Amino acid sequence: MAIAAETAAMRRAITLAARGLGATSPNPVVGCVILDAAGDPAGEGFHQRAGGPHAEVHALRAAGERARGGTAIVTLEPCNHTGRTGPCAQALIEAGVRRVVYAVSDPNPQATGGADTLRGAGLEVAQGLLADEAEAGNTAWLTSVRLGRPYVLWKYAATLDGRIAAADATSRWITSPEARADVHRLRAEADAVVVGSGTARADDPQLGVRGIEGAVQPLRVVVDTGATAVRPGARVLDGSAPSLVAVADDAEAGHLPEEAVLRLPRAATGPGLDIDALLAALHARGVRSVLLEGGPVLAGSFVAAGAVDTVVGYLAPVLLGAGPAALADAGISTISQALRLDVTETVRIGPDLRITAVPVPARKGN
Amino acid sequence: MAIAAETAAMRRAITLAARGLGATSPNPVVGCVILDAAGDPAGEGFHQRAGGPHAEVHALRAAGERARGGTAIVTLEPCNHTGRTGPCAQALIEAGVRRVVYAVSDPNPQATGGADTLRGAGLEVAQGLLADEAEAGNTAWLTSVRLGRPYVLWKYAATLDGRIAAADATSRWITSPEARADVHRLRAEADAVVVGSGTARADDPQLGVRGIEGAVQPLRVVVDTGATAVRPGARVLDGSAPSLVAVADDAEAGHLPEEAVLRLPRAATGPGLDIDALLAALHARGVRSVLLEGGPVLAGSFVAAGAVDTVVGYLAPVLLGAGPAALADAGISTISQALRLDVTETVRIGPDLRITAVPVPARKGN
Repeated sequence: MAIAAETAAMRRAITLAARGLGATSPNPVVGCVILDAAGDPAGEGFHQRAGGPHAEVHALRAAGERARGGTAIVTLEPCNHTGRTGPCAQALIEAGVRRVVYAVSDPNPQATGGADTLRGAGLEVAQGLLADEAEAGNTAWLTSVRLGRPYVLWKYAATLDGRIAAADATSRWITSPEARADVHRLRAEADAVVVGSGTARADDPQLGVRGIEGAVQPLRVVVDTGATAVRPGARVLDGSAPSLVAVADDAEAGHLPEEAVLRLPRAATGPGLDIDALLAALHARGVRSVLLEGGPVLAGSFVAAGAVDTVVGYLAPVLLGAGPAALADAGISTISQALRLDVTETVRIGPDLRITAVPVPARKGN
Repeated sequence: MAIAAETAAMRRAITLAARGLGATSPNPVVGCVILDAAGDPAGEGFHQRAGGPHAEVHALRAAGERARGGTAIVTLEPCNHTGRTGPCAQALIEAGVRRVVYAVSDPNPQATGGADTLRGAGLEVAQGLLADEAEAGNTAWLTSVRLGRPYVLWKYAATLDGRIAAADATSRWITSPEARADVHRLRAEADAVVVGSGTARADDPQLGVRGIEGAVQPLRVVVDTGATAVRPGARVLDGSAPSLVAVADDAEAGHLPEEAVLRLPRAATGPGLDIDALLAALHARGVRSVLLEGGPVLAGSFVAAGAVDTVVGYLAPVLLGAGPAALADAGISTISQALRLDVTETVRIGPDLRITAVPVPARKGN
């Protein structure tokens, strides 16, 4: 078996897996390519939605009899448990696959053990091919398994001088159509989109995905602690996708649809709700990835709670010199407390820049 | 003559020219390579300092007799006037050069006409080779000729959320050693470094170039409208390089060295001094390029005066959520008045990003 063929197949499997982003939670995204006994691609598939067949099953179906004596290339360790679908390890064994190559081990205690089952049945098993790339494609899910809460990507759009609106609160449009389209891709890849009461009040956002065919609409969440920002008739309550209005335990929310109200404790310190409780409530609903769209005060609460896993900033080449900043009230008063990040990517999006950064892991003993 | 040899020589000439940045004002930077009759490099040079020989003279000296029948490759049209040195057009003719290739025409009315003189003497003359690159290398000087005031590059260093310091004013160090070293390069390339009274009061900066061998120290300028920020003993008055403290006509500046005081009218509107008057005074002193290092209020005055030609932002991957912004009081209150820029370069400098942008030319009829 040529290693090049397996590597090419894994790359393809990673690409396939990404198609499932935003649609598979609480499951990971997974891609699979079956190579026949001669090493030629015989079938491929990906996990398309929670409750639907796993990637391996799709790929085995496509390969048919050609899977016999062949190799399965999978982005994640084949599952060993019978959830809503049968275990994939068993399916691979029954299809007569001779060798299984997977990129990343399954950290989910319920699903792990697939590799052992395969080996026990006499199959050759190899792990680690393109593991970094496959992990990057599954960052949200892997993070959620590791932390026991949804992965949070904070997105903001600001001028070069860090303003999200002008002094008179006008902000349409700081960033370009290209950047705004890119945000819809982020929404499509997320399980939930979260905004604060200031954004709800100022923009009455609909928070849906537009312009991306086949996208699964994310759960729309407004953190409206005092239940004063989302009014009946708000666009976020338009029924086009599920919505939640997170309010304080003690807030008067009779004007909101009963099923949309999520009652949570207030933050122990600072404004708003307890962010950990919010994330736990979303996790319990199957949310594994959150796109936090702001505004600055809510983003500050997430930063203060240590609940931002990735920052994506769209920077428009614009100067204002006045207006609100992208981030507020993060509980940081001196430079040594600053949240330090690593820039992982810088890309031009139309005239704007998209900067992606992740928090530097806290160093022990510092 | 191979075009490739001339192009390579022009590229080299542009590189040579850049070595003069910060040292040649009020003259441009110029590089020159002499190719012999066979097309091989025979000599090179650049304009090293105002009052010293021009690039062509250095290169002709290096080439000696090999210049005869050869080609001179120059970044700027050879000068035609006798200033502090003789006209370069004449020197090229006398050296027996057969052909002259220059990138950019000289827009200076006193110096122009060199190409005509060369043609009149029977030399072949070609213009435009790598003109864009050569222009970019001479941006500061060309801008100053076009506008009749020094070119202004505004540099700032901020966090991803646009803060230049934490809430308690601590800011050491938001950006990395690599970014700070890069700022010293900008200082070395500038004729003058300008800061405002807030920066002078908070940081007592010395404003000199450190760590760059052979750098010409820029003129150090503090805009201290009320003459209250720069005190006797301030580091900017340490005598290591010339300094100016720009104060209002009516300010009491008896505590400052007489020769360092520059009296200017106050701004007609807003805080501080009249920026046009400041730039005119610097221009009269031979300053062709200004590095504006802030702080936010002074930068705002420059933006409001339409006197920022390039913006260089060093963005540190850090979040603060509080603290002063990079730009203030630019006279912009609504989004339609925002200063729109084009990003011309994005580069990683250590862990930080350096973003370079230039104002979008005002569109007629808008």
